[in-house]
Amino acid sequence: MSRWAIGIDLGGTAIKAAIVDEKSGIVRDRTIPTDTASGPSGIVAQLAGIIADLYRQASLYMDPGSCDGIGLGAPGAVNADTGTLSYPPNLPGWAVVPLRDDLQQYLQQHEKLSVPVFIDNDANAAAFGEALYGAGREFKDFLMVTLGTGVGGGIILNRKLYRGSNGTAGEVGFVIIDFEGSSAHAGITGTLESLIGKKRIVELALRMIEASPSGSSVGKFCGCDYTRLSPRHLEHAAKEGDPVSLAVWNRIGSMLGVGLANVVALMDIRKFVIGGGISAAGNLIFNPAIDQLRRSTLPSMHDGLELVPALLGNKAGIYGAAALCFG
Amino acid sequence: MSRWAIGIDLGGTAIKAAIVDEKSGIVRDRTIPTDTASGPSGIVAQLAGIIADLYRQASLYMDPGSCDGIGLGAPGAVNADTGTLSYPPNLPGWAVVPLRDDLQQYLQQHEKLSVPVFIDNDANAAAFGEALYGAGREFKDFLMVTLGTGVGGGIILNRKLYRGSNGTAGEVGFVIIDFEGSSAHAGITGTLESLIGKKRIVELALRMIEASPSGSSVGKFCGCDYTRLSPRHLEHAAKEGDPVSLAVWNRIGSMLGVGLANVVALMDIRKFVIGGGISAAGNLIFNPAIDQLRRSTLPSMHDGLELVPALLGNKAGIYGAAALCFG
Repeated sequence: MSRWAIGIDLGGTAIKAAIVDEKSGIVRDRTIPTDTASGPSGIVAQLAGIIADLYRQASLYMDPGSCDGIGLGAPGAVNADTGTLSYPPNLPGWAVVPLRDDLQQYLQQHEKLSVPVFIDNDANAAAFGEALYGAGREFKDFLMVTLGTGVGGGIILNRKLYRGSNGTAGEVGFVIIDFEGSSAHAGITGTLESLIGKKRIVELALRMIEASPSGSSVGKFCGCDYTRLSPRHLEHAAKEGDPVSLAVWNRIGSMLGVGLANVVALMDIRKFVIGGGISAAGNLIFNPAIDQLRRSTLPSMHDGLELVPALLGNKAGIYGAAALCFG
Repeated sequence: MSRWAIGIDLGGTAIKAAIVDEKSGIVRDRTIPTDTASGPSGIVAQLAGIIADLYRQASLYMDPGSCDGIGLGAPGAVNADTGTLSYPPNLPGWAVVPLRDDLQQYLQQHEKLSVPVFIDNDANAAAFGEALYGAGREFKDFLMVTLGTGVGGGIILNRKLYRGSNGTAGEVGFVIIDFEGSSAHAGITGTLESLIGKKRIVELALRMIEASPSGSSVGKFCGCDYTRLSPRHLEHAAKEGDPVSLAVWNRIGSMLGVGLANVVALMDIRKFVIGGGISAAGNLIFNPAIDQLRRSTLPSMHDGLELVPALLGNKAGIYGAAALCFG
């Protein structure tokens, strides 16, 4: 009988949860909107509700004795050892919350459910998900980069999560590649997130469209309303051959490549799994990234360099969260 | 009876070697000029000669049965598993040499000495030396940075060397912090080594002296011959209060801080041991570096940030090389 767990991806907008069978993957999943207004205690109740619900469903056809626990990926700084979540950026009003223990106790008291709870950062969970079920299965060591509103990362060394001494490792969005530049994020100049986060891609595109003498065909994809311009429009325009949109992706990919070069130099990691909404641009961003990665590293470090798309989409987090229990 | 080993630091200029007692440290050491002209086979013979000599001396008052082997730190890319040294930058004409096995065989055939040989990169050896005998003794995880002609690094995780999948980890000199800048080293733009390597410090100083309306007092330290200007002169002038020299060190330290911020973001390493000739500038470089390190990292990553001077000077390499045997 194979082991199973409940994996949860706690986000600022939605709570995604699934019953995950260790061998066959997701058996059943559910998504509910996050009730951010209710604060930590309200969200613990929400989490407990969805867990209890899935647990009861699972118990109809899976052995409760084979359940390895509840895994939770959460935004912000998570200490996997102590089980605390600190200052999650998308859950306003949270300080330092002992989320693991609170949830475990709530499940016991209100749902009569005694199961161990495991918790980690959402980017780490996504990386671990790809490591066990996705694009990272063949790689012993890799960095997973999530390109979206923010730029996040998780590091797998020797098929295990590398968390660092304080659990904050893998923050590739805070790698600085342009310390004298004009971009900044969270008060730090020249970070990767300040250069290739979703908003910055749009800002760069607007500047490049404005500066282009022959204009860009991207207008027709956003109904000529540039306040609506999104990376998706730039993707469509680039695929149609719009030179400005192509130049935007080249520059974004190239900056990603510089950031990854720092990972190669420091950690000797040569495999990169790229996920997140922005990664839908595919080779528009992958090709310039790998080209720049080669230009920005020593030839003696080129062996085995590889950049591959993530495979699990927005399910990487729940896969990885469940996998925290199988460890 | 305590264990002992012979540690060797193979450099482009000198071969440093020592008998190292695991508990009490260096018992006896010797330095000879490297005969670079003789190529790999000549240097193997040179190494074997100094090893045999020290081994015979050690045998007079130490138990040969307690000798754990010969440890060798070498410049360039070393594969600690296979024992090969590839393209050492300061040993012209070398390609890929099976240095460990060649040395072991030579010792057996010509010196009747059957001892295991361990080999690693010189920057790794220095980091391991500081970890076991120097400034890193209190740190579980740290990065050692060597500031000199080049900028090198070695990473200690959980009191062990972190080598990466291919043995090239810790190349902090190749971390890119200014990808749109004008400096380059080994064909890569904006690397730390291209910005704060010894030559670049002097170049920066010359530019800043030239641009300073009120001039600099550093001239009196280099006999007003600016072709002789060295970081040491800038150190003396700064300690006397010369504003231009102070500004040079502030900028160098600050750029070092940006580079280390990338190590904090990616690896969650918060302890840094700074060695190499340039580190003699001490707080002139340490103070701006730690200030910038704080500015360039998230407040949630400031706990425990520390930058300390290396303790073993140019003996870190031989200590660490010997320690490779004690592992």
